[in-house]
Amino acid sequence: MTRLQTMKPRIFVTAFLKPEALALVHEALTEEDYYVADRFNPREGDKAAFLRSTIAFGNVAPDLLEEATELEWMQLESTGFEYYLGCKGLSPDLQITNLRGMFERPAAETAMAGLLGLFRGMNQLIPANRERKWSEIEVRVNLRLLHGSKAVVLGHGSVGKRMRKLLEAYECDVQSYARTSEGAELRDPASLGEALSTADVVVCCLPNNPSTKGLISRELLARLPGQAVFVNIGRGAVVDEPALIEMLKDRRLAGAVIDVTQQEPLPPEHPFWDCPNTILTHHTGGGYPDEYNAKARYFIANLQRYKQGEPLKNIISLQP
Amino acid sequence: MTRLQTMKPRIFVTAFLKPEALALVHEALTEEDYYVADRFNPREGDKAAFLRSTIAFGNVAPDLLEEATELEWMQLESTGFEYYLGCKGLSPDLQITNLRGMFERPAAETAMAGLLGLFRGMNQLIPANRERKWSEIEVRVNLRLLHGSKAVVLGHGSVGKRMRKLLEAYECDVQSYARTSEGAELRDPASLGEALSTADVVVCCLPNNPSTKGLISRELLARLPGQAVFVNIGRGAVVDEPALIEMLKDRRLAGAVIDVTQQEPLPPEHPFWDCPNTILTHHTGGGYPDEYNAKARYFIANLQRYKQGEPLKNIISLQP
Repeated sequence: MTRLQTMKPRIFVTAFLKPEALALVHEALTEEDYYVADRFNPREGDKAAFLRSTIAFGNVAPDLLEEATELEWMQLESTGFEYYLGCKGLSPDLQITNLRGMFERPAAETAMAGLLGLFRGMNQLIPANRERKWSEIEVRVNLRLLHGSKAVVLGHGSVGKRMRKLLEAYECDVQSYARTSEGAELRDPASLGEALSTADVVVCCLPNNPSTKGLISRELLARLPGQAVFVNIGRGAVVDEPALIEMLKDRRLAGAVIDVTQQEPLPPEHPFWDCPNTILTHHTGGGYPDEYNAKARYFIANLQRYKQGEPLKNIISLQP
Repeated sequence: MTRLQTMKPRIFVTAFLKPEALALVHEALTEEDYYVADRFNPREGDKAAFLRSTIAFGNVAPDLLEEATELEWMQLESTGFEYYLGCKGLSPDLQITNLRGMFERPAAETAMAGLLGLFRGMNQLIPANRERKWSEIEVRVNLRLLHGSKAVVLGHGSVGKRMRKLLEAYECDVQSYARTSEGAELRDPASLGEALSTADVVVCCLPNNPSTKGLISRELLARLPGQAVFVNIGRGAVVDEPALIEMLKDRRLAGAVIDVTQQEPLPPEHPFWDCPNTILTHHTGGGYPDEYNAKARYFIANLQRYKQGEPLKNIISLQP
């Protein structure tokens, strides 16, 4: 008999959840042995509770994870898992699952809001509204159409595919970059560079991992034409930020929509705040009304699979 | 023989065109008898030149149009033609054509930019960027998804159809209102009221004419649920603006995107400027980079039809 069938799982809950979502977890775990840690009010028993757990729900600190000996499964509360790529000594039997797909709609909608916002003058109109200043003529001359644009989407996971679908509704000519995914037209940096050289819109939906880190280099950025708008809803680490900032300040790019940055929160002195034609969206791209409840429901559904010995959903690999 | 075959048309050009677009007109009219009036620098001979013309390109003032005796065709420089609905004594043979369809993409993109802007927090994020204030937590809790929303599109002309298509890319459940168009699910105010009572998004794409003026009454607006966002890219006269403003200020509506207003430009003391969760877009919805050239090309193409005795494109009727 496997351990699963002989022992009740011990569950460590550290995910950041709103009260309603936490109530869903409490309700689902009536028969379980579980411990809830509050990230903002750590208690003395937290570490010991984690170390004796077989299941964790939430993004446990990487150094603490390395100490785990009993842990069989960690359900992340995020899609990104780059924080764990350098972890050493993890049990080969430890399963880690993420929330892949949960943020595709909100992230793609934030990207579209920013992109259309730049093309349709929202970064001029919204401030003009505060000043009660009718700005028809000044704004109208700068407007662009997304319709028919040439777009490159970096990443062909759930966000990248959703993004592509939304751009296609505006009859954009979209090419996707991904090293291995079927359905991506661009598979290597050379063909990517070629596509970038005529792009109107570039949307980065890539996670941070060894194959994407720094991918959008100064050299690749330099291939973008002056009319291009760069959107990042993936991870800041994918992009050479100083090079991007330089190009925006020199107006060698038409604009940018930046949801994610290498440093978050951005400090007041960060040069991104000064970039012209740039909409910063403060890593809000994943937000949607039901997100905490959805995370709780996701964990509960995976827990059912775990208890029934079924394969977990969205298992990730830390191997490069 | 008809007059057309015996006489060279005399053309009066009063459309507002940028130099590049005016050059296109000059180039096309090398063999024609034409007169260009500059709306911003009127000259003494303008009126006489108009009165002897058989063709006008541009929106001639309604009272001047009533004096025309020679005019056979007026090509408007707009889609809207409500200014002429009250004209008296026009020749029954006078043909008027508009630019129907020319603004569908920019207008629908401005509506989407505003709508996604409200749902994804641009009206908080863009001002926060000016203050260098990272606002992830404050903004994220207010975000909504357009995906799967229930939408009502008022009008099923070119803008309404385009709008519907864009909303459907976000898997919205869309119903269109139009009295007579096939493909519109809602044909009368009663079924419209019913649909509005559960709407998340309402987009008005209606022109101003006797059948639409005041259609969105205080009573219809009152049927909207609190989560609804109201978008107007049609005409201000369609809506009871004081009622809309009251509902926004009382937070009985989630927000609004207003491109068109009964008074334009909006004066600084207008109450629209103070409405919460409201993005005003200053009648820029029709703007796109090529718009003046497109207007010139449109007129030139219709002129070819005129000269060849073919039916003109986009003939409008001033009859109710």
